[in-house]
Amino acid sequence: MQNEVIEYLKKHREKHLSELKEFLSIQSISALSSHNEDVKKAAEWVKNELGNIGFAHAEIMSTDGHPVVYGEYISDENAPTVLVYGHYDVQPVDPIELWDSEPFDATIRDDKIYARGATDDKGQVFMHLKVMEAILKTSDKAPVNFKVLIEGEEEVGSPNLPKFAQEKKDLLEADLIVVSDSALVERGKPTITYGLRGLAGIQIDVTGAKSDLHSGEYGGGVVNPIHALVKIVDSFRDEKNRIQVEGFYDRVPELSQEERDALASVPFDEEKLKNDLNVPELDGEEGYSYVERTSVRPTLEVNGIYGGFQGEGIKTVLPNKATAKVTCRLVPDQDPDEIVELLTNHVEKHTPNGVHVDIKPFDKGKPYVTPFDHPVIKMAAEAYEKVYQAETAYIRGGGSIPIVAELDEILNVPVVLMGFGLPDENLHAPNEHLNLENFDKGMETLAHYYYMLNDYKG
Amino acid sequence: MQNEVIEYLKKHREKHLSELKEFLSIQSISALSSHNEDVKKAAEWVKNELGNIGFAHAEIMSTDGHPVVYGEYISDENAPTVLVYGHYDVQPVDPIELWDSEPFDATIRDDKIYARGATDDKGQVFMHLKVMEAILKTSDKAPVNFKVLIEGEEEVGSPNLPKFAQEKKDLLEADLIVVSDSALVERGKPTITYGLRGLAGIQIDVTGAKSDLHSGEYGGGVVNPIHALVKIVDSFRDEKNRIQVEGFYDRVPELSQEERDALASVPFDEEKLKNDLNVPELDGEEGYSYVERTSVRPTLEVNGIYGGFQGEGIKTVLPNKATAKVTCRLVPDQDPDEIVELLTNHVEKHTPNGVHVDIKPFDKGKPYVTPFDHPVIKMAAEAYEKVYQAETAYIRGGGSIPIVAELDEILNVPVVLMGFGLPDENLHAPNEHLNLENFDKGMETLAHYYYMLNDYKG
Repeated sequence: MQNEVIEYLKKHREKHLSELKEFLSIQSISALSSHNEDVKKAAEWVKNELGNIGFAHAEIMSTDGHPVVYGEYISDENAPTVLVYGHYDVQPVDPIELWDSEPFDATIRDDKIYARGATDDKGQVFMHLKVMEAILKTSDKAPVNFKVLIEGEEEVGSPNLPKFAQEKKDLLEADLIVVSDSALVERGKPTITYGLRGLAGIQIDVTGAKSDLHSGEYGGGVVNPIHALVKIVDSFRDEKNRIQVEGFYDRVPELSQEERDALASVPFDEEKLKNDLNVPELDGEEGYSYVERTSVRPTLEVNGIYGGFQGEGIKTVLPNKATAKVTCRLVPDQDPDEIVELLTNHVEKHTPNGVHVDIKPFDKGKPYVTPFDHPVIKMAAEAYEKVYQAETAYIRGGGSIPIVAELDEILNVPVVLMGFGLPDENLHAPNEHLNLENFDKGMETLAHYYYMLNDYKG
Repeated sequence: MQNEVIEYLKKHREKHLSELKEFLSIQSISALSSHNEDVKKAAEWVKNELGNIGFAHAEIMSTDGHPVVYGEYISDENAPTVLVYGHYDVQPVDPIELWDSEPFDATIRDDKIYARGATDDKGQVFMHLKVMEAILKTSDKAPVNFKVLIEGEEEVGSPNLPKFAQEKKDLLEADLIVVSDSALVERGKPTITYGLRGLAGIQIDVTGAKSDLHSGEYGGGVVNPIHALVKIVDSFRDEKNRIQVEGFYDRVPELSQEERDALASVPFDEEKLKNDLNVPELDGEEGYSYVERTSVRPTLEVNGIYGGFQGEGIKTVLPNKATAKVTCRLVPDQDPDEIVELLTNHVEKHTPNGVHVDIKPFDKGKPYVTPFDHPVIKMAAEAYEKVYQAETAYIRGGGSIPIVAELDEILNVPVVLMGFGLPDENLHAPNEHLNLENFDKGMETLAHYYYMLNDYKG
């Protein structure tokens, strides 16, 4: 059965690539309201495509923001149901002058397809759709029931999807969720992302006098908000880069030896990375490796700091305000609300005399981790390995896809993050692309996976 | 004689105020090259004014930067010669939105004239010019010879004036220098500034990776330049606000009991200041009073800090660069060059792994102190007291007028710093103004002073 499916994909490759180009030509930039019509057009495209490939039911469902496309193909009430989540919206394209070809006129060079959305996430959504098409066109019964949920607001933080999923909980019911919106750790290496970090952060505004002061007149006698802010920020971490916020690590379990061993086997070339980034050294929390620091350990980073004079040369002011924007990447079982509270307490405790401090939280996201020995994860690895002929890497992503934790919580089924991008495919940057080697192997992998899942009893 | 002068000033007050408004309307911001023409215009204005008030000689003299205006009126070869120094350039006006009236459209409210430069220093320069006018218009002989040196680069650290003064040493020869570019300690209190702090500082640029990075991908593993910068900046001072730069205090003598007693008698109302500035507490170097901290003790203040995302909300970047601008106010016998060297050593010693640091010094100025029992100082106090009917306060200014130390060194005559501003007149800030009470009393004081100096034998 799988062989026919794979044959079908090979046979229709050119046609599929030209359809993908059409999908990629729609400028569905969710962050820019000037592209609202394009976003709608992309939703229509996905809905029509679901009809074309043989889904009995496909519709565009409105939310308070951009719409969601939902479709289903129920093959057999007793077969397992897979919910595929993805997004049809894309990032803005600035700086446009750094693109080697038009971002919305997909171009194939060196077996890579270049366009905004090629890897994140239109290309990977499209791969699922074509595998489903191949299955439905080559047999009269699919090995699993398909539910497809493709949203249009992932690139702006999925503000409306949790409410949608909560309201449509019954409709979305499934045995597992599959998401292809991530990357292999390196070319040729199957990769399952079994965890994602969460996000929580605050803006700290330190205010001194009612206006900027002359540093000669008042300097030394009136507290400088920059010094106060620097003292607060410096108190967040110790010499060993351990975060000093009281209670911060309370819900972070120690890594098991098994997990550390698995992470130690993730390919990582320190010299190459230093060279690529042009940094003299890598550094971070003492006692942990680079891979651990950037995936399974929580972090606290200042994303922006500002206060006082920023022009050329010097202006000898004692500024009246200084600001820092701080975010933490969280790991299970840290809770974003609690972290904001702990950060707030810490700042208040470490605020020097003589200034006012004001704290505002940013949007939050929960961390997510799934047991990597779950049968649906093991099956995904098996499908990958069949095609790639290499052992699967299990990693925890350093970034955050907050909706994954939300879907997990609302629908309460395992989420399988199996992506087919590569780390250097410039997502969110100019010259985004998808390697067609993974376009082909990825669809083959998904075909095997769907057939294997036929045996799964959720 | 003085009475006629004072009558003249009273009679022409309205006319003078309208001339002052004209002077204040010129946007002579020396720091911004877009205002170079305005700076030139202000120099022209001063030169023409010198002609109008009766100076035989007035000219604009070029330097490597903005020009200097020089004029002289030699009344009697045997009379003492006063060199009046001031500046016609002003600070930038940002943040413009905090001004209650246009910075270059002088407005009188509550007997105060509001405009950029009103107190620093166009207003005070103008007062000298009008007293000279009154003297020259009401008698055919002045009590002293006048030399006037008004520069256009004080607000950018007078980079070209020392060379100019050195080259024109003979031209500028005088028995004393009078500078009105400072303030009374409080309303109604004559104040002579017998010392000024010097200035030295550096810009610290910390660079990490070649570009901003995704804080989810790299956060925790690649050193964040903001954290590195914060660590450096926080290392400058200890918990007691003692500066931790090695060698920083080596040339700072302990204060004598006599000096501490004198400073303790300077009027200072802590509650009023806290209220005026809207700060909950004052704080500074442990073991010193507010007046000591802001006048006779050296300081280190960060005037500006910036790096990473500054927009609304959050962008989860790990920025590639962070900058701090740091200046120190120096006291005798600290040497600005040496301080820059000590700061540089300190930064290098405290730079964490994983980043590059680049250090650039700013323009420097030496600290200055003059014996406060010199006869020309005593005469200035007497002139003040005649008009203000209150005892003179002798203070050391917290600010820096680097050129004062330079002129003192080059011309080797006493410098009398008698200012007529007030501490809350917002120099270098929005809503700069000059209280017209001191405009009137100040001119009266200067008139008396010039006549008293007739008796001085240099």
